[in-house]
Amino acid sequence: MAKKIESHQNKVFKRIKSLNQKKNRDREDIFVAEGLRFVSEIPQGWEVELFAVSDAFAQENDMEIYEERAKTFIFPNELFSLLGDTENPQGILAVCKKQNTAQETLWRGGASFFLLAEELNDPGNLGTIIRTADACGVDGIFLSKGCVDVYNPKVLRATMGSVFHVPVFQDVSLKEVILKMKENNISLYAAHLKGECYPYHLPLEKGCAFMIGNEARGLSNEAAELCDQWVKIPMPGMAESLNASIAAGVLLYEVVRQRLN
Amino acid sequence: MAKKIESHQNKVFKRIKSLNQKKNRDREDIFVAEGLRFVSEIPQGWEVELFAVSDAFAQENDMEIYEERAKTFIFPNELFSLLGDTENPQGILAVCKKQNTAQETLWRGGASFFLLAEELNDPGNLGTIIRTADACGVDGIFLSKGCVDVYNPKVLRATMGSVFHVPVFQDVSLKEVILKMKENNISLYAAHLKGECYPYHLPLEKGCAFMIGNEARGLSNEAAELCDQWVKIPMPGMAESLNASIAAGVLLYEVVRQRLN
Repeated sequence: MAKKIESHQNKVFKRIKSLNQKKNRDREDIFVAEGLRFVSEIPQGWEVELFAVSDAFAQENDMEIYEERAKTFIFPNELFSLLGDTENPQGILAVCKKQNTAQETLWRGGASFFLLAEELNDPGNLGTIIRTADACGVDGIFLSKGCVDVYNPKVLRATMGSVFHVPVFQDVSLKEVILKMKENNISLYAAHLKGECYPYHLPLEKGCAFMIGNEARGLSNEAAELCDQWVKIPMPGMAESLNASIAAGVLLYEVVRQRLN
Repeated sequence: MAKKIESHQNKVFKRIKSLNQKKNRDREDIFVAEGLRFVSEIPQGWEVELFAVSDAFAQENDMEIYEERAKTFIFPNELFSLLGDTENPQGILAVCKKQNTAQETLWRGGASFFLLAEELNDPGNLGTIIRTADACGVDGIFLSKGCVDVYNPKVLRATMGSVFHVPVFQDVSLKEVILKMKENNISLYAAHLKGECYPYHLPLEKGCAFMIGNEARGLSNEAAELCDQWVKIPMPGMAESLNASIAAGVLLYEVVRQRLN
């Protein structure tokens, strides 16, 4: 049975609210999935600690499916609206365990396909990139220190649930990951202003990875030098650069195109 | 010489501030370009009505280049910060005439390349799509009624200046534009859930156009039926859909790829 919670002082209320801060999410290795669509994307086997719903949601929806799966708490509408990050909350959120894929399982040989990002700052960009990488069937995403937190509510919203599908590793040492890739014959490419070849003739049916840099500064020299080849995205028009998520989309989709055949 | 303005009551202050509202921009056919980077993107021949700068900006920069080009007004820093839409204003904005390309000049025959959007709502998406279309060398962009205003500050920021490069037509009747395209042998494609062919084998070296639908609802049936062919963007992974600007990027870049040869 769902439990009713009426007060700001309640510790469940306080705890969920505390998860708006990264340090609290990190300490417990959990995050908050807000909204009906996002909650309905949680895969069957995923560990959910609790559901929180508003009175209005509880009246209009069958609560059993939630109660069977995890502890469920009902809040008065106003109190619920204070819980999350959304301006117009839809009356449901879930506190979930973070992803827990072991990096070693990724080095499976064959035509693997990875994405690396260095100091990507914009939550919308990161979320959109994760969603796109998921659509393209990427095997894993590696984020350097200084990237925005994947479990930031704005990032999560932009992933549209893809955070449940693709393994994402945060705060990694790009150097170590790249060494691992070299050992596994995975070629690493990056879009770079000094790139001389277009992505269209790269041998992307083989194991490959792309690295994306910071929105304003691009890749650091250190990271750029770890790449096997720099790539140029053609820009026949007048714009001088692309949005980071568009650049990622163009590169990832070239892998998809080549592998369709 | 730049003129100093000290008061909220001044009519130049009030007029610039009024341009945060679409109806006021529309009445005078002008818009506000905020920030040094955006202002520096204004092409030589573009009609600028006035520049507004903060005291701090005026002290640190050569004002002559602005004064020579248009009336220039200096505001105390605090007053300047009330003028625009940006949270951390960079101390300069320009009031510019809107684009004024005649639609007829677009129907020039040959391998034209257009983008149409129906009821695109998100400012960031629209701005990113305009920037991407500019990078790809699109000849013109047509927006249906119900799309977000191109001259909305959030859209402008995301275009990164591309609004000065590509002709954008707002509030158009898609039906009339599509008739015009048919007369000019331009094939119209749209990403559609019922699409059966991938974009990679379409004859995109010929005149072509792509249509993008609303972020949540996709294309209306009416608009979808005006297309020559529905296209499917492959998604070998688990995501069920792409962000609208990513979908546009994948399609527009396929034109670029095919035309490189």
